Amino acid sequence: MITIRPETPGGFPEFLPAEQMALDDAKNIIKRWFERFGFAPIETPAVELKDVLTAKGSLDKQIYSVSRLQAERNLEAVLAKPKKGEEKEAKERLSTLAEELKIELSGDDDADRLALARVLMGRTSTDMALHFDLTVPLARYVAGHQGNLTFPLRRYQMQKVWRGERQQSGRFREFYQCDIDVIGRGSLDPMFDAEIPSIIYQIFSEMQIGRFLIRISNAKILEEYLLGVGVPAASLSEARSIIDELEKVGTARTVAALVSASGIPAETAEDVVAFLRNDVSTTALIERLQGMSGSDRFAAGVAELSRVIDGVRMLGVPEDYFKVDLTIARGLDYYTGTVYETTLVDHPGIGSICSGGRYDDLASYFTDEKFPGVGISIGLTRLISRLLSAKLIEAKKSTPATVLVTAIDRSRMGDYLKMATSLRRSGINCEVYFDNDPLGKQLRYANRKGFFFAVIAGEREFAQNSVQVKTLTVGGSHTYQIGDLVENVRYLHTLIGKEDPPRR
Amino acid sequence: MITIRPETPGGFPEFLPAEQMALDDAKNIIKRWFERFGFAPIETPAVELKDVLTAKGSLDKQIYSVSRLQAERNLEAVLAKPKKGEEKEAKERLSTLAEELKIELSGDDDADRLALARVLMGRTSTDMALHFDLTVPLARYVAGHQGNLTFPLRRYQMQKVWRGERQQSGRFREFYQCDIDVIGRGSLDPMFDAEIPSIIYQIFSEMQIGRFLIRISNAKILEEYLLGVGVPAASLSEARSIIDELEKVGTARTVAALVSASGIPAETAEDVVAFLRNDVSTTALIERLQGMSGSDRFAAGVAELSRVIDGVRMLGVPEDYFKVDLTIARGLDYYTGTVYETTLVDHPGIGSICSGGRYDDLASYFTDEKFPGVGISIGLTRLISRLLSAKLIEAKKSTPATVLVTAIDRSRMGDYLKMATSLRRSGINCEVYFDNDPLGKQLRYANRKGFFFAVIAGEREFAQNSVQVKTLTVGGSHTYQIGDLVENVRYLHTLIGKEDPPRR
Repeated sequence: MITIRPETPGGFPEFLPAEQMALDDAKNIIKRWFERFGFAPIETPAVELKDVLTAKGSLDKQIYSVSRLQAERNLEAVLAKPKKGEEKEAKERLSTLAEELKIELSGDDDADRLALARVLMGRTSTDMALHFDLTVPLARYVAGHQGNLTFPLRRYQMQKVWRGERQQSGRFREFYQCDIDVIGRGSLDPMFDAEIPSIIYQIFSEMQIGRFLIRISNAKILEEYLLGVGVPAASLSEARSIIDELEKVGTARTVAALVSASGIPAETAEDVVAFLRNDVSTTALIERLQGMSGSDRFAAGVAELSRVIDGVRMLGVPEDYFKVDLTIARGLDYYTGTVYETTLVDHPGIGSICSGGRYDDLASYFTDEKFPGVGISIGLTRLISRLLSAKLIEAKKSTPATVLVTAIDRSRMGDYLKMATSLRRSGINCEVYFDNDPLGKQLRYANRKGFFFAVIAGEREFAQNSVQVKTLTVGGSHTYQIGDLVENVRYLHTLIGKEDPPRR
Repeated sequence: MITIRPETPGGFPEFLPAEQMALDDAKNIIKRWFERFGFAPIETPAVELKDVLTAKGSLDKQIYSVSRLQAERNLEAVLAKPKKGEEKEAKERLSTLAEELKIELSGDDDADRLALARVLMGRTSTDMALHFDLTVPLARYVAGHQGNLTFPLRRYQMQKVWRGERQQSGRFREFYQCDIDVIGRGSLDPMFDAEIPSIIYQIFSEMQIGRFLIRISNAKILEEYLLGVGVPAASLSEARSIIDELEKVGTARTVAALVSASGIPAETAEDVVAFLRNDVSTTALIERLQGMSGSDRFAAGVAELSRVIDGVRMLGVPEDYFKVDLTIARGLDYYTGTVYETTLVDHPGIGSICSGGRYDDLASYFTDEKFPGVGISIGLTRLISRLLSAKLIEAKKSTPATVLVTAIDRSRMGDYLKMATSLRRSGINCEVYFDNDPLGKQLRYANRKGFFFAVIAGEREFAQNSVQVKTLTVGGSHTYQIGDLVENVRYLHTLIGKEDPPRR
C-alpha cells in the first residue's frame, strides 16, 4: 500500500489540543465581551465572487481563487510537455479527453492542446475566491442585506481568512480574524467610537496577558496638521508611512526622511516630531490641541477625539490603559476619523495586537447608500502564537475535563458511569477511564492530559460506600461518601477555579 | 463609479443575524456537551495537500482546489481566443506577458500561447485543496502528530467543509460539520461506543427540538446475517443499499430488489425483511440475536452490540430515546462495528440528524500503525436550516443583548453608561442607545431587535434617583432606585431566562 506523508501545506498553522484550547479560551473571552456589548454574530462564506473581492483591485497577488480539482488535473495533463518515450501515451490521453469533451482534433499537436485547454480552463476555474479579510465581506453583506438589517448594525465576525503570503515571510496564510464593527445608515454618533476601547479593555484584562495600552488618535488631526505645516497633499501618504516608523527609527532619521519626502524645512520637521511625540497627560494634550489654530477639519478631528476620550472615561476604562497617540499613522488611507492601536506595554516587540478605526463609507463599491462605520480587528492566530512563544499564556491542559473517574474494578463500571453522570449534570467536565489498565497507568494518563482531580473507588471504598478524590495538581487526597461526591468536587473545583475557571 | 452587485456564489449559505444566533446557540450546546465528556477541540487548516485529500481517490469530482488568482487571470487571458478586431491588442498582451515571464516567443501564435500557458499553469495551481470532510484531516492529524498526542485521543472538531455539489441538487457547497471521535492506539474498548449515544442524547435534549430516536446497530450483524442466508459477498454492498431504502419503499419492493440483486429465493428475502423489521423491545431483540446461530463474526457483533446497549443504559439514556435498528445500512463500507443514526420522531422527513460508527483503522493511508476509532458527525448547517424551515427552532432575536439602556437626555450619557457598565459587570449583555432619537424610535429599535428589557431614565426619574425598566416581551414596567437596578434586572432576567437563558 502506498503510504502518503501526513503533512500540511506550508504557512498553514495547526495546533496540538492544548494550544488549540488556549486559542479557544481567548476566542471565548472575545466572543463573550462582544456579546456583552450587544454585538450579534454573523458569518459569511469563506468565498466571495471574484468580482466582489477584487472591487478595490489592490490585493490581487495574495488572493487564492477556488478551482475544480478534477478539471484542473486534466488541464495540467493537456498542458504538460510529454516526457521522452511517452509521446504515444500522451497522444492517446489527448484523444480520450477530446472524446469526453466532444472536441474534434485537428492533428496539429499545439492547436489540439490549445483547443482542449480552452475548454478545460472553463471547467477548472470558478467565479469564487477565498476572502482575505472580513471587511470586504461585511461591506457586501451590508449592501446585500440592508433591507433585512436593523441599523445601527452591531456585528462581530470571527472567521478564518486566507492570504497567499510568500512562504519566506514567516506569515500565516490562514488565520483567524476577530472583527467587531458598528455600521450606521447615513450617520453614526461618535459615542460608538468611544465604546470600542472599552470593549478592548475588557477583553485584554480578562485574558490576563499583562499591561496593555490602547492608543487613540483621529486621522483628521495628523492629516490636517501635516498639511498645515506645508506637507504637500501628494506627499501625505509617504509622510504617514515615515511617521509610522517614528518609534522604531528615532527622531533624527524621521526628520531627515520627512524633509526629503515632503520638502519641508528641517526645523519644521523637528517641530512635527516634537508635536507628535509628547509626554503630557491625555487631558493636557487635548487642551493643547483645542488651543491650536488649524483648519475646520483639524478642529473637527480634535472635537471628535475629545468626545471619544470623554466617553472612554465614562465607560470606566482606567486612565493607565489608554492614551492619545498622534503618531498612529497606519491604515489612514482607509480610516477617516478615530483610529486605535493596542500594544502590550512589556512586550512592544509583539506589535499592535488590535487595530481599527472609523470609516466614512463602508460599502461604496456595492451601493450608493452611505454606511459609515467604526470597528476593530484582532488577528487571533498571530496573537495566540506570539503569546504562547512569549509564554504570556500557557498551554498545559490537553483536556477540557477537570475530573477523571478511574476504573480499577471493571465490574463496577455502572457505578463509575453514575458518578460521571452526576458530575456532568452539575456542570463539571469529566471523563471515565475505559481501557483495562492498572491504576498507575490511569493516573499517569490523567497527569499527562492535565486533569485536576482523579476519582478512585475500589473494593475498600465501595464496601464503605465511599470514594477517594485525588488532587493531581497539588497532591493529596480526600475520602467522601459517594452521595457527597458531587458537592465536594464542586467545592474543590471552586478552589482551583481561581486559577483556571471551569469552561462553560 | 462601477457598482458591483453584492451577491454570494450559489450554494453558499449565509444567515441574517437572528438565524446566525440560532446556529451559534446550537453550536454552543454541542460544544458544551462534547467538552462535558472530556473531548478536546482541534482544528485543521481548511486546506490539505492534494495528495492527502485524494489518498482514497474517491470524491475527486467534488473537491475544490486552491489556485493563485493573479496567475489564473493571466492564464485565462493567454488561453482566450482573441475577439474579432482585437487581435492586435491580444498579440501585444502576449508580448508583455512573455517579457514578464522571460519567455522568447516564436511567432507561431498557438505554440507561443501554449508555451506561456505551461509556465502560467505552474504559477496558478498550488498543492492545496479544500477539505470535503473532517475525517481525512483527522486521519492525517493523528498520523502526523501521534508522537505528541495522548491516546485514547478524545477530540471534537467543528469546522466548515466544502463540496462542489451540483447547483441543482439544492445541497450546500459549504457547511459546518461537528465531529466527535475517540481514537485509540492499537485497540479501543467497546465502552467508548456506548458513550457516544449518551452525548447525542444530552445535545438534542438540550436543543429542545422534539422527540428523537438514536438507532443503534452493529455492522457485523447485518453483514454476517446476509452472508449466512446466502447473499454472495459480491452482492453485499448492493443488498445494503436496498435495505437502506426499506423504510421508504416498503416490504414488497425490498423483497423483489433483494431477490434480483443477490439471487436469494423470495422466501429467504421475506425472512430477511421480517428479521430486520421487528417490533420487539431492545432487550427481547438482543436476546433473540444471542439465541441465533451464526458465524463467529456474527456472534462478535451481537456481543459488542449487547455491551454497547448495557453501557448506554448505565449512562442514563432513557429507554424511549434509543433502539436497536438492524436496518441501518449506510456507511457500512467504512464502519466495522457499532453504527448510529438519529432521527426526529415527529419529523422523519428531516432524515438522519447525526450519524456515525466504529472503524477499525483510521489512518491506514498515512501510517502502518493501527488507530481504531468511533465517532459521530452532525451536519450543523443543514440541520439548522431544516429546523428553521420546520419551525422547530425560532430565530426571533437579532441581538445577543437582553437590555437596551435608552438615552432620552443626552446630557446624562455618563449615567446611562454607568448603568450599562454595572449590568455588564454582573454578566448581563446590554447595549446603550447612542443616536439622538425620540424615545418612541428607541423602543421600536429595541422591539425590532428583540431586547427583553428597556431601561428608561429622564428628568423625572433622575430627580428621584430612580430608573424605569420596561419589559418589552410581555409589556408592563417597574420603577427601581438606580442602586437596585442590577439586582432587579438580574431577577427579571431569571424569570424570562426560563424560556431564553442568558448567553454566556
